[in-house]
Amino acid sequence: MALKRVLIVGAGLIGGSMGLALSRRMPHLEVDAVDVNPAYREQAAGLRAFRHVWHALESAPSDYDLAVLAVPVDAAIHLLPRVRGKASWVMDVCSVKRPIVEAMDRVLTGSRGVPSHPMAGKAQAGPLGADEALFEGRSWIFLETHRPPAEIEELVRRLGARVVRVPDAEDHDRRMAEASHGIHLASQCAVLAAEMDPAAIAEIAGPAFWDVTRLASSPSEFWIQTLGANREHVIAWLRRFEAAARSFRAALERGDAAEVRILLEEAKRRRERADAARNTE
Amino acid sequence: MALKRVLIVGAGLIGGSMGLALSRRMPHLEVDAVDVNPAYREQAAGLRAFRHVWHALESAPSDYDLAVLAVPVDAAIHLLPRVRGKASWVMDVCSVKRPIVEAMDRVLTGSRGVPSHPMAGKAQAGPLGADEALFEGRSWIFLETHRPPAEIEELVRRLGARVVRVPDAEDHDRRMAEASHGIHLASQCAVLAAEMDPAAIAEIAGPAFWDVTRLASSPSEFWIQTLGANREHVIAWLRRFEAAARSFRAALERGDAAEVRILLEEAKRRRERADAARNTE
Repeated sequence: MALKRVLIVGAGLIGGSMGLALSRRMPHLEVDAVDVNPAYREQAAGLRAFRHVWHALESAPSDYDLAVLAVPVDAAIHLLPRVRGKASWVMDVCSVKRPIVEAMDRVLTGSRGVPSHPMAGKAQAGPLGADEALFEGRSWIFLETHRPPAEIEELVRRLGARVVRVPDAEDHDRRMAEASHGIHLASQCAVLAAEMDPAAIAEIAGPAFWDVTRLASSPSEFWIQTLGANREHVIAWLRRFEAAARSFRAALERGDAAEVRILLEEAKRRRERADAARNTE
Repeated sequence: MALKRVLIVGAGLIGGSMGLALSRRMPHLEVDAVDVNPAYREQAAGLRAFRHVWHALESAPSDYDLAVLAVPVDAAIHLLPRVRGKASWVMDVCSVKRPIVEAMDRVLTGSRGVPSHPMAGKAQAGPLGADEALFEGRSWIFLETHRPPAEIEELVRRLGARVVRVPDAEDHDRRMAEASHGIHLASQCAVLAAEMDPAAIAEIAGPAFWDVTRLASSPSEFWIQTLGANREHVIAWLRRFEAAARSFRAALERGDAAEVRILLEEAKRRRERADAARNTE
């Protein structure tokens, strides 16, 4: 297969950014988009990245090589039966993989499914936030159970991303609970734990406060869907997170400095192990 | 009072950075240091910031205008009786204020105490981490109950810091639990909640993971003392933090997306309120 025609389904932040990067870096591709939101369609047209921006999937032709579902997880599952047959390959970019893979395996006949997940995003949603460099240096995760063709891996590399393969959807979702979904909740809990006026905290806060609480500004809609779709792993993570907080509290209540040290050293050891793995990539 | 002679007690990261900045920006000052650690003394001498680096407080003369206790909170309390009489003003830079203020009010006679707290630090401890720009743009907190003379506020501004006054030690310590001490524990708990190999998480982690868990690499010794010295407020913060995590978990267990939305929106509202206060300083 050689990729020639690509359809981006959903011209939001991810879809718009993919469109921008593909039109500039792979100009031989014909890239179309489809979005049901008239404002998004107008903004997406303004990016000058798409050959055509369709208003509905049904209007688009059925001879694409690749369709990318760049919509939230619920919408992606909903659209799968309708995108079937529009393209040889159908790739999603959702933050949770198990419900997507289950739907792909059930629904897609006549097209091949490529579950994927680029670790990229930013606070500003929609095509106005689109950025050609959004994927630069980021991981783009695929599953060993659904390996993409070489052409799709190459496309992802041209977007600047690093191809990472994990064993399966279950492994992906568990890792996401630990590397992303739980992390976002930690940030939100750190904000919700305060009882003083946020302005009084801001007056004296240093970089630690701003870095750790930054994610509390994330778009709620995305997170409601993501946490719901990965609830089993997120719930298990939250139990362990609460237990860690209780351990610190119990040690402080007992005035047990030795136990506080053990907890701090264990966290430090793990963080440094993660950092070492990151730096030796 | 005009500041002419300054003694930095403890030539670590904070003391070394103060020495560097003062020697370069206020060259009319005579700045000495004292440190009991021979390696720190040698490294501090290498900074070329101090006129003299004493090996013990008792060796230093007793005619300083200002002595700065740049040591951890337990050491500062321990040193207060011995620094009394060495300088007209004695300022500490510790991260917790109530035990310092209690000790200053009890011990310091013949010198005047200035409890203070610069919101600055970094992972590398000791004089080798010293950085003239460490305080640039950071808050330097004083207490209304122990207002410093204009000369000390001016010195702090010359270091690049922003003078902030809070009502008293109690208010300071409560704010610190919310803006810093609790925040560090949130970062540590986010690391401790993971059950996968840190290297497996690092492979797919995005900026969210690295930002939120960054503080888990902080020096344990400092945090054991700080958390212990502010335990009452930190314990109360941890209770609220655990409650926030339980609220998220309960909502996910019930599949209650509306409640998840309420929690996310409340965190977002508070974070944005803090951000607005920060940007209108």
